[in-house]
Amino acid sequence: MKQNIVERRIMWGDLDSLGIVFYPRYYEWIDACGHLFFEAIHLNILTLWQERNIQFGLVETSCRYSSPGRYHQKIKIVTEIDALEKKTLTLKHDIICSETDKLMVRGLEKRICMNVADPEKIRAINIPDDIYVILKRSQTQ
Amino acid sequence: MKQNIVERRIMWGDLDSLGIVFYPRYYEWIDACGHLFFEAIHLNILTLWQERNIQFGLVETSCRYSSPGRYHQKIKIVTEIDALEKKTLTLKHDIICSETDKLMVRGLEKRICMNVADPEKIRAINIPDDIYVILKRSQTQ
Amino acid sequence: MKQNIVERRIMWGDLDSLGIVFYPRYYEWIDACGHLFFEAIHLNILTLWQERNIQFGLVETSCRYSSPGRYHQKIKIVTEIDALEKKTLTLKHDIICSETDKLMVRGLEKRICMNVADPEKIRAINIPDDIYVILKRSQTQ
Amino acid sequence: MKQNIVERRIMWGDLDSLGIVFYPRYYEWIDACGHLFFEAIHLNILTLWQERNIQFGLVETSCRYSSPGRYHQKIKIVTEIDALEKKTLTLKHDIICSETDKLMVRGLEKRICMNVADPEKIRAINIPDDIYVILKRSQTQ
Repeated sequence: MKQNIVERRIMWGDLDSLGIVFYPRYYEWIDACGHLFFEAIHLNILTLWQERNIQFGLVETSCRYSSPGRYHQKIKIVTEIDALEKKTLTLKHDIICSETDKLMVRGLEKRICMNVADPEKIRAINIPDDIYVILKRSQTQ
Repeated sequence: MKQNIVERRIMWGDLDSLGIVFYPRYYEWIDACGHLFFEAIHLNILTLWQERNIQFGLVETSCRYSSPGRYHQKIKIVTEIDALEKKTLTLKHDIICSETDKLMVRGLEKRICMNVADPEKIRAINIPDDIYVILKRSQTQ
Repeated sequence: MKQNIVERRIMWGDLDSLGIVFYPRYYEWIDACGHLFFEAIHLNILTLWQERNIQFGLVETSCRYSSPGRYHQKIKIVTEIDALEKKTLTLKHDIICSETDKLMVRGLEKRICMNVADPEKIRAINIPDDIYVILKRSQTQ
Repeated sequence: MKQNIVERRIMWGDLDSLGIVFYPRYYEWIDACGHLFFEAIHLNILTLWQERNIQFGLVETSCRYSSPGRYHQKIKIVTEIDALEKKTLTLKHDIICSETDKLMVRGLEKRICMNVADPEKIRAINIPDDIYVILKRSQTQ
């Protein structure tokens, strides 16, 4: 199973008044890590968009929160494919405290393959075979 | 059923490169609308925190995306209680296109009542009776 | 002098750990208010971009902070043209406490007129006459 | 001269509709790099706050934009002290394209030493001697 791992520190600007991470920040990191996962398996999403009019649009996102992130904490975000269907794929992002290895947040992003040639008429399509093969391979690596 | 409604326009800074709303923005709005809902039923979350050491911490959040938000679109965010348990409550936030009344995003926030007297040892508690009554009443208004 | 005024409340997600506004939020609001100012004088920046390949790109931004923003405070952001040159214009944004009318933050955005027909070769141009007239008129209204 | 250098990639969520970095993001990075600079010279701002009631509050921030940041670009942010006064210090943050070494954005943050023992009555103070020595030393290293 191919995993992409990103490490970062929790910064001042990530916190709310209670001194814990403001939760939309987790989604910003998860979105970024989703893009990095695609790159790690050699799918450049900008190229897919500009050359083939393909985007993996969002169907649903969610996060479960186990323990709050605090200032200066070192975290790692582990991204892998959780499910792969004809039209959709689901990425799982585990945000883990680097020091204790404890799961802090589990995020899911379900994305659907879309043809965006006409931005006014975006429509769902089957994941093209060459891309499906790359995604499938990442699950068995 | 008590609903709180917030209206806003989608701004330039909310968009991504594809010209549609960058999804962590939805969670920022939902979080803000959750706070406004509490105020609308006269629960000031800052007072709850400072005077009674109570916070409604996050268990889980999610969004389902039906249609993308675009520049300058007028939207309304309709917030109500979706479920109320002993320790938890779930807020539902429907983000709706003001012009067409079409649902764009449905967001859920499940929150758990916490005693945060000691920020290092946050723990779940039953929702205090006086607060539970206020929340319950909002469902039958 | 044409002014555009936006009112909002400071929300939970705008705060940092000290309980005051995290300053990049001010720039988000200022950017949004700049766009709204253009609309208020009937310059739609999306139309300018899509139909005439014109964008007002940033040269410099700055903020001076007089008093910190706090939770739930009602503020107004007053936007007007501070300077207008052949190629550039500077917007001034005063962020004011609605209750006390005290200036909290003064933000400046200096923007330069650009032709963005080729996104790889963005270049500065004189502000087209018809647009210059609209901007000039807003200063003497 | 002590410099702190942070490297990162420009991510999808950093971009606006034109495909260039949305400028409040630069300020988020600059703020984070300011905190990292303090840590690099062994001034932990959380400790200063919690144990000595000291914060370096903002007087003014600014950015000059030379060339726009684009998707996936590798950048480095070089932070150093630009000016040191009795009560204030100014940090300079150069955001540089890692590939070409070209300056993209120069950001300045002027901060003033504050006693925040009473959050309702924050007041400016001289930078305490032990802290001033550490800051001064970083300029001559």
